Amino acid sequence: MRTQKQVSAPRAENSTSLAVETDFSDGLIGFCRTFRAQPLAAETVRRSTDAITDTLACMLLGTSQALEPKLRRALFSPQPLKQVLTQFAPAALRVSSTDTQGSAALYLGTLAHAADFDDISHPAYCHATALLLPALLIRGVALGVSGEDLIRAHVVGVETLGQLGRRLNTAHYERGWHTTGTFGAIGATAALAFLENFTDDQMRGALGVSASLASGVRQNFGTMTKPLHAGLAARSAILATRLAEQDFTCAPDAIEGKFGFMKVFGGTAPASYAKQWGHPLEILTETGIGLKAYPCCAATHPAIDATRRLREALKDNSVEDIESIRVGASRFAMQPLIYDLPNTGLEGKFSMRYCIASAMIDGAVKIGTFEPDQIKRPAIERLMKKITVEIDPLVADDHEFAAIVELKLKSGREESIRIDVASGKPGNWLSETLLKEKFFDCLGAERLNSQAGQVLFKAAQQLAVQKSVEALYQALVQTLGEADVS
Amino acid sequence: MRTQKQVSAPRAENSTSLAVETDFSDGLIGFCRTFRAQPLAAETVRRSTDAITDTLACMLLGTSQALEPKLRRALFSPQPLKQVLTQFAPAALRVSSTDTQGSAALYLGTLAHAADFDDISHPAYCHATALLLPALLIRGVALGVSGEDLIRAHVVGVETLGQLGRRLNTAHYERGWHTTGTFGAIGATAALAFLENFTDDQMRGALGVSASLASGVRQNFGTMTKPLHAGLAARSAILATRLAEQDFTCAPDAIEGKFGFMKVFGGTAPASYAKQWGHPLEILTETGIGLKAYPCCAATHPAIDATRRLREALKDNSVEDIESIRVGASRFAMQPLIYDLPNTGLEGKFSMRYCIASAMIDGAVKIGTFEPDQIKRPAIERLMKKITVEIDPLVADDHEFAAIVELKLKSGREESIRIDVASGKPGNWLSETLLKEKFFDCLGAERLNSQAGQVLFKAAQQLAVQKSVEALYQALVQTLGEADVS
Repeated sequence: MRTQKQVSAPRAENSTSLAVETDFSDGLIGFCRTFRAQPLAAETVRRSTDAITDTLACMLLGTSQALEPKLRRALFSPQPLKQVLTQFAPAALRVSSTDTQGSAALYLGTLAHAADFDDISHPAYCHATALLLPALLIRGVALGVSGEDLIRAHVVGVETLGQLGRRLNTAHYERGWHTTGTFGAIGATAALAFLENFTDDQMRGALGVSASLASGVRQNFGTMTKPLHAGLAARSAILATRLAEQDFTCAPDAIEGKFGFMKVFGGTAPASYAKQWGHPLEILTETGIGLKAYPCCAATHPAIDATRRLREALKDNSVEDIESIRVGASRFAMQPLIYDLPNTGLEGKFSMRYCIASAMIDGAVKIGTFEPDQIKRPAIERLMKKITVEIDPLVADDHEFAAIVELKLKSGREESIRIDVASGKPGNWLSETLLKEKFFDCLGAERLNSQAGQVLFKAAQQLAVQKSVEALYQALVQTLGEADVS
Repeated sequence: MRTQKQVSAPRAENSTSLAVETDFSDGLIGFCRTFRAQPLAAETVRRSTDAITDTLACMLLGTSQALEPKLRRALFSPQPLKQVLTQFAPAALRVSSTDTQGSAALYLGTLAHAADFDDISHPAYCHATALLLPALLIRGVALGVSGEDLIRAHVVGVETLGQLGRRLNTAHYERGWHTTGTFGAIGATAALAFLENFTDDQMRGALGVSASLASGVRQNFGTMTKPLHAGLAARSAILATRLAEQDFTCAPDAIEGKFGFMKVFGGTAPASYAKQWGHPLEILTETGIGLKAYPCCAATHPAIDATRRLREALKDNSVEDIESIRVGASRFAMQPLIYDLPNTGLEGKFSMRYCIASAMIDGAVKIGTFEPDQIKRPAIERLMKKITVEIDPLVADDHEFAAIVELKLKSGREESIRIDVASGKPGNWLSETLLKEKFFDCLGAERLNSQAGQVLFKAAQQLAVQKSVEALYQALVQTLGEADVS
C-alpha cells in the first residue's frame, strides 16, 4: 500500500495507533466507487453545470477586481495578461510542470472568489466551485477528460466539502478557520484524484498530503487574502495529486488520526448534520450549493426577488406612482445590513433600502448598481425615503432571510409578495434568465467581446454532452484574454 | 498602509477589532530595525554559519533518500536531476517566475529535512535552517545579497521561530501541529522579508499572507510528508513576500487578531519561555539551535560522545580487551530507545547498545553505520553482549539525555566519562572536526566528487566574508548535480 506508515521514529503517538482509523477516507473511497458507476440524474447535472457556468463568470469578473494585477505580477512577474495566458493554452498546459499548473490554478481560483459573488456550500460554509473548478479544468485539459467527467468530479468535490462540514462545523468555522482554505485543500484534492481515476491507495495518498496543506485563517476576511484561500486550495490539489501519483508517502490516517486533520482542526458538528455519503448527493440537498443572484449581501436577496416581481406587477404604473414600500425582514437579515442610507457602493451592498430601491427602479441589481456614481442618484434617493424596513413577525426567525415586500401605490392599490428562499438557493434554483443575466453582467458588457462570451456560456451550459472540456477551457482563456486592460 | 483592513463585509468579528492587536508583528519589526544596524557578534556568525553548512550537507544527503526521485518527478516531471538543475542555475533563477522559485525552495527544503538529520530549535520544536535556507538562498542569488546579509536573515528567522514557540508551545505542538510547517511559514517569511529589505508595511503584508499559508499536521510524522513541511514553509515565504511586494492586502492583525494565527493555532506557553526580541538573540540561547552530530536518535548522543572519548583513552588496548561497558542514562532517554538488540538499520538508530558498540568499534557513528549489512557484524554483536544500559540516579531526571559511560578493561582498568549536553547543542557546540566529519559523511564519499564538496564546505564556512552568496549557491548546485544517479 502506497501510504503505509513508515516506522522511522517510534514516537508514542504513532506506535499507539495500531488500529488505524480511516472512516472518512473509506467513506469517500466507497462513495467514489459507487458514484462512478451510476448514471447522473438530470438535476445533478443541472446544478453542477450551472455552478460551473456561474464560476466561470466569476473568474471573468475577477479580472476587473483590484487584486488581479497584483496577483498576476506576484505570480508571473510584470507580464500583461495576454502574455501570461500563453502559459494557459491547452498545448502549453499539457507539457507544463506542476508549479506552472499550480500557479494557473492559484490564479484562476483567486479570481473566481475575488468579488465574493461565487457559490457557497453549507454546512461546509465554504465557497465550493471557485476552489474546485480551476484544478479540474487545468488537469482535465491536460488529461483530455469529457464534460461529464468534469461534472462528476465537481459533484465529488461538493460531496467531500459537505461531509467535512457535517463532521466539523460549526465549531471549525467558529474557531477561526476559513473553510474555503482548510476544507478546500481536501475537497479539491478528492475531486481531482477522482477525475484522475486514482486507485484507492493513490486517493489515500493524495488526501494524506492534502491534510498537511490545509490552511487559511478568517482574520484575513475583507482583504485580498480571503479569495487567495480558494486559489491556494486549488493549487494544493495539484501538488497533492502529483505527489500521490509518485507514491510519495503520508500517514494513511492523516485525515482521521490523533494528530490528523479532523482532530487538529477540530470541532464537533450537531448530530442533525450527519448524512450518508451520496444519500442524497450533497449537491442535491437543500444546503448543498447556492448561487448568488445579486452582487450584494445575501440577506437582501429574497427581498430583491420579491421587489423584482412586484415591479413586473406594476405594469402601466411608474415608479413615481409608488406611495410606499414596506420590507418585512428576518432578525438575521438585520445583522449584516447595517447601512440605512449608504454613502459608498460597498455600503450599498449592505443596505436593504438601497438594494430594494435599485431593484424597483432598474429592474435588476447588477454589478454596476454599486459603482460610486450610482449611489446618489436622485430617483433612488427619492424612492429610498418611501421604503421602510422592519422585522416582520411572520419571518422574524427565518435563517434563510425570508422576506415580505409590500407595495402601496398612490391609487390605493396594494401588492405583497413573500419569498422564503432566494433565487439561486437549492430550493429555488436560478432560472436560466437570471443565470444568463448574471453571467453577462460579470463579463462586463463594455469591456468584453460578447461573442466570445456567448461561446463560453453555451459551452458551459452544454458541458455534460461534450466529449472534451478543451473547447470550454479555450473559450475561457480567450474571454480572459479579451479582459486585458493592463 | 498596505495592509489596511478592507471594509468589504461588516462582519461582527472584524468590526469589533477597532483597536488592532499587533504586538508580535511590532516586536518583529522593531527587532529587525535594531538588528540590521548592529554589528554581528562572532558567536552569532559561528552558529549561523555552522547551521547553514550543516543544512547544505543535509540537502545533499537528501538526494540519496527514497523521497528524492518521487519529489523530483512530482514537481518537475520525469527529468533527470541534472536537467532539473538547469532551472536552479543563478542566471535561470534571476528570470524565473514565483512558481519556479517556489518549487526550487520546496525541493531544497524537503531534501534538507528528508533524513531528519538537520538542526532543530527550541522552544519552537521545529527544524529551523531546513525551512529558512532554501528561500534565502534562492532569493539571495536573485537579489545579489552578501554572505553577511544571508546570515543576518537566518538569525532573524531563528529569532521569529523562537518567539512563536515562546508564545504558543508546548500547547501548539501538543495539539498536533508540526511547527516546521506552521511556525515555518511565518518564520521563513519574516527572514525573507528581512533579506529583501522590506518596509514595515511590506513586512506586515508578508506576515499576514503567511498566516494564511501556515499548515502541517503531525499525523504525517514518519512519512515523506514530514520533510515536505519544511519545503512548504520555504515555498510559502516566496509566495507571501512576492504578494506583499505587490501590495496584495491582508489583515494587519492576521497574526494576532481574534481569528489570526496566534489564536486559531492556539496554545499558551509557560511564562518561563518569555524573552525579549533579540535579548539575547534566540540563536545564542541554550535552546536556540542545535545540530545533530550523529544520524540516530538524539537520546543516544551524549553517550556516543562519551564512548568516543573513552575509545581515545583506550590507546594501546583493543576492543577485545574490554570486559564491560555500562551506560548510565536518563529516564527520558529510555523512552525512545526501544530496541535492545536491533534487527534493522532503522531499529539500530533507536538502540543504545548498538550505537555504543558502533562508536567503540568504528570510532564514529555515521550514516553507513545503519546500513542493513552493518547491523549483524560479529564484532558488534560480541561487544553488545558486554554492554548494559540502565537509568543512573545521577542523570535520571535530566532532559538533555545526559549520560555516564563506564568502561572496564580485562586488565581491571576502569575509565568513566559523563557528558551532560551532546555535541552540536548550543552548550557544547559542534567542533570543526565533527562538523566536517558529518558534512562529508552526508555527501557520501563514494558517490560525490570530494573536490566539489571541499569547495562547498569552504564557501559555507567563509560565508560571512563573501560579497555575494552566488559562489556558495553555485557550489551547492554543482555538488547536487554530481549526486545524479537517476
